[in-house]
Amino acid sequence: MTTLASPPPAVPDAFLDALTRIVGPAHVLTDADDLALHLREERGIWQGRAVALVRPGSTAEVAEVAKACAASRVPVVPHGGNTGLVGAGVPFGGIVLSLARMNRVRAVDPLNATMTVEAGCVLADVQQAAADHGLLFPLSLPSEGSCRIGGNLATNAGGTAVLRYGNARELMLGLEVVLADGQVWNGLKGLRKDNTGYDLRHLFVGSEGTLGIITAAVLKLFPAVRAQATAFIGCGSTEAALAVFSRLRAEAGESLVAFEYLPRFALEIVLKHAPDAAKPLAEAHHSYALIELASPRGDADLTGMLETILSQEIEAGRLEDATITASEAQRNALWLLRERISETQRFEGGSIKHDVSVPVSRVAEFIETAGAACRAVMPGARPLGFGHVGDGNIHFNISQPVGMERAEFLAAWERFNEVVHGIVQGMDGSISAEHGIGLLKRDELPHYKDPVALDLMARIKGVLDPQNILNPGKVLRIGDDLPPAIPLGKTG
Amino acid sequence: MTTLASPPPAVPDAFLDALTRIVGPAHVLTDADDLALHLREERGIWQGRAVALVRPGSTAEVAEVAKACAASRVPVVPHGGNTGLVGAGVPFGGIVLSLARMNRVRAVDPLNATMTVEAGCVLADVQQAAADHGLLFPLSLPSEGSCRIGGNLATNAGGTAVLRYGNARELMLGLEVVLADGQVWNGLKGLRKDNTGYDLRHLFVGSEGTLGIITAAVLKLFPAVRAQATAFIGCGSTEAALAVFSRLRAEAGESLVAFEYLPRFALEIVLKHAPDAAKPLAEAHHSYALIELASPRGDADLTGMLETILSQEIEAGRLEDATITASEAQRNALWLLRERISETQRFEGGSIKHDVSVPVSRVAEFIETAGAACRAVMPGARPLGFGHVGDGNIHFNISQPVGMERAEFLAAWERFNEVVHGIVQGMDGSISAEHGIGLLKRDELPHYKDPVALDLMARIKGVLDPQNILNPGKVLRIGDDLPPAIPLGKTG
Repeated sequence: MTTLASPPPAVPDAFLDALTRIVGPAHVLTDADDLALHLREERGIWQGRAVALVRPGSTAEVAEVAKACAASRVPVVPHGGNTGLVGAGVPFGGIVLSLARMNRVRAVDPLNATMTVEAGCVLADVQQAAADHGLLFPLSLPSEGSCRIGGNLATNAGGTAVLRYGNARELMLGLEVVLADGQVWNGLKGLRKDNTGYDLRHLFVGSEGTLGIITAAVLKLFPAVRAQATAFIGCGSTEAALAVFSRLRAEAGESLVAFEYLPRFALEIVLKHAPDAAKPLAEAHHSYALIELASPRGDADLTGMLETILSQEIEAGRLEDATITASEAQRNALWLLRERISETQRFEGGSIKHDVSVPVSRVAEFIETAGAACRAVMPGARPLGFGHVGDGNIHFNISQPVGMERAEFLAAWERFNEVVHGIVQGMDGSISAEHGIGLLKRDELPHYKDPVALDLMARIKGVLDPQNILNPGKVLRIGDDLPPAIPLGKTG
Repeated sequence: MTTLASPPPAVPDAFLDALTRIVGPAHVLTDADDLALHLREERGIWQGRAVALVRPGSTAEVAEVAKACAASRVPVVPHGGNTGLVGAGVPFGGIVLSLARMNRVRAVDPLNATMTVEAGCVLADVQQAAADHGLLFPLSLPSEGSCRIGGNLATNAGGTAVLRYGNARELMLGLEVVLADGQVWNGLKGLRKDNTGYDLRHLFVGSEGTLGIITAAVLKLFPAVRAQATAFIGCGSTEAALAVFSRLRAEAGESLVAFEYLPRFALEIVLKHAPDAAKPLAEAHHSYALIELASPRGDADLTGMLETILSQEIEAGRLEDATITASEAQRNALWLLRERISETQRFEGGSIKHDVSVPVSRVAEFIETAGAACRAVMPGARPLGFGHVGDGNIHFNISQPVGMERAEFLAAWERFNEVVHGIVQGMDGSISAEHGIGLLKRDELPHYKDPVALDLMARIKGVLDPQNILNPGKVLRIGDDLPPAIPLGKTG
């Protein structure tokens, strides 16, 4: 774990008093115990430092806190659930501004199919509020019980339903944002069409708290699901799995909600290490996929469609085996196989992870090429590319060779990154499909991103946050007084 | 028609020579005849001026032209099909840069469901290229035979399929853009997930050529439609029509592609003035809607679903009458009723138009309130609110009182704008749903847009186009040497 040697920048004496006057003494916390959870991050790579945890209860309070920080040039790191995976929430001095108290659903408009929520709403609560009105908010992530919608938007969260519903970005119609100088931009419109000038919303979504503090949003809602069908298929190759995907997309169209790919190695480790996992198909196959169809039409015969298509694919020899679920319990058993991959991989020793995307047409080639390249870098390395291949997103993890020392394996971290990201680059892909840049990939980004894009990003950061106090040092490196982006203590 | 009194700014002698060296003598046109079509605009309100029409054949040539313009501080107005409705393409000095020669489909990737096209591709050709691969590019507009995809993106075009597929913005995955200084940003990625920094794409989409020149784009494609059903309904109120919409959305979900509203007055004028229009229902009703369902599933029983839902709605008394088409000819006959509204309204004398949106939940209230307000402004005025109400977009036109002088009616233009836009504002709506701001609404925008948003827009314009040479005077008023935004010669 990396604890930075340099102390946080000095904070004027009167600064904390000013914050206390704004949010009340109960909501400016400076005790180490109160701060602790906000100084850690999910991967356990960095240990942050902050002078205070500040918990405003309203947009007006956020704006006043931002003004105070701007006046004293104190850095502000906004926090939702602090579940990010790239260190974007790690403070290095300044304050952590938690949005957790701002957790009201301000309005639900069923006829407009929208919901106005504050940034601190937990994702699962947003889903539930939609369900309470017979509607669906489809964003779904492993951390949905603790991540908060403001963070989902600030990082443009993805997940398993992107294929059908899009990323967090595509699920948002309007935003309320506190800017670096404390001004409040009220863009909380619930409109499907609004061509009155530049689209500011999309600048803030995915900016990881570096351009503004999202305080509320208008979200798109969808008709509730009334019919569902789930299948698990086994194929002789990754290409074969993608051919089935292509046919399903053409014929099932928007009913195709998820297409999650698992290589043989993934299923093997889940079956080996997860006591609650059950073998889905009789034989072993090269590749597997979990398929889910869903529709608001209660009478949509999705199971019938899956049966027809999958049995035709088996007859044609493109598919080796398939099972379609007949109950919710069976469905949960299949999803468990997908969800247990990351945690069971830990039992196989160190793992070096990549969250990448390529065009769907190159997914099979990517998995093969990157796998071979990793085995060439380190004989015995066990690459495992899985995930949301229906939207081109591959979680490409490499498990250490059997019997190797963990530290020896992890020493090759940068080398593996270089090789995998180089292949991604050659396929017009992305080195961060859904997790973002944060600190983890900040210093890698200039090697892969179009230089004109980087220049535009820096110019936009400069004009929106001229003092560089909004989550400084994340996404872009500006100035020299920043923490190292290549962490000293890696945990794989 | 407004011809500006002030001459275009002087252009250095060597400037046209430099352009000629870049694009060749055949593509720098200075004759009045060659320029004429590019100095007019669809509404016939403004007459532009330009020193030359420049027609580059490649992105590299666009970049060189932009560099030359930046070096000499010459304004550049990018043109696609010049079909815009708000005067965004009117040049006042400087050059018109036509993208029309850049009309290649660079690539189609069926498995990725994307297509890479140059900005000058005509929209209908883009649709056809997708169809040639068994896929759908769903953007559809009345001007699709002449508008070009670069212009569609620069203006974030809407149309009749937004309800299901979104605006041009939502149909775009990547962009290539020439910046004000001639740098080329290559953002031509065909990825559904890419969280590597700020989203620059959405800044350029909808910026009406004021932030950069879009030269190419990666577009999303969809499965081809294999089943379709179309209906025309008659109801006793606007609320009743929207209640049917709400039920269809909940039960048909993404199969609901279009829901177009027509008030009684709209159908009356179409039946009166369009010789090819036929009465769709036996009796007259307060409100009508054209409904279309579509699915990639060939066996989707969309007609059956419509029959069930609409007959239940009739039994329940929420719907007065309905017809479902049994042939393509019948379908075309229904769509003709919708498409003829604007042109037949001309036979009723002057018309003052608004392109607005409100939350879908307030559409009925808007149509009623705005209609009453217009009749209060001018007794006998005949308001006609119609259009894409499924996405909240109402084309709210006002026909002149019968027998009044056209000029007398048009003199109330600003007063009607004020009243209608004031009601829109009070409902958290937009004064420009799909047409944009251009010149037509530029000076109105500050009255309705959040001042913080306007300030952000100006700051972004300043950092991306510091010399204000990209389509100057459109969307935002910067500096004083600009054409009047309230046109002198209105045509209704």
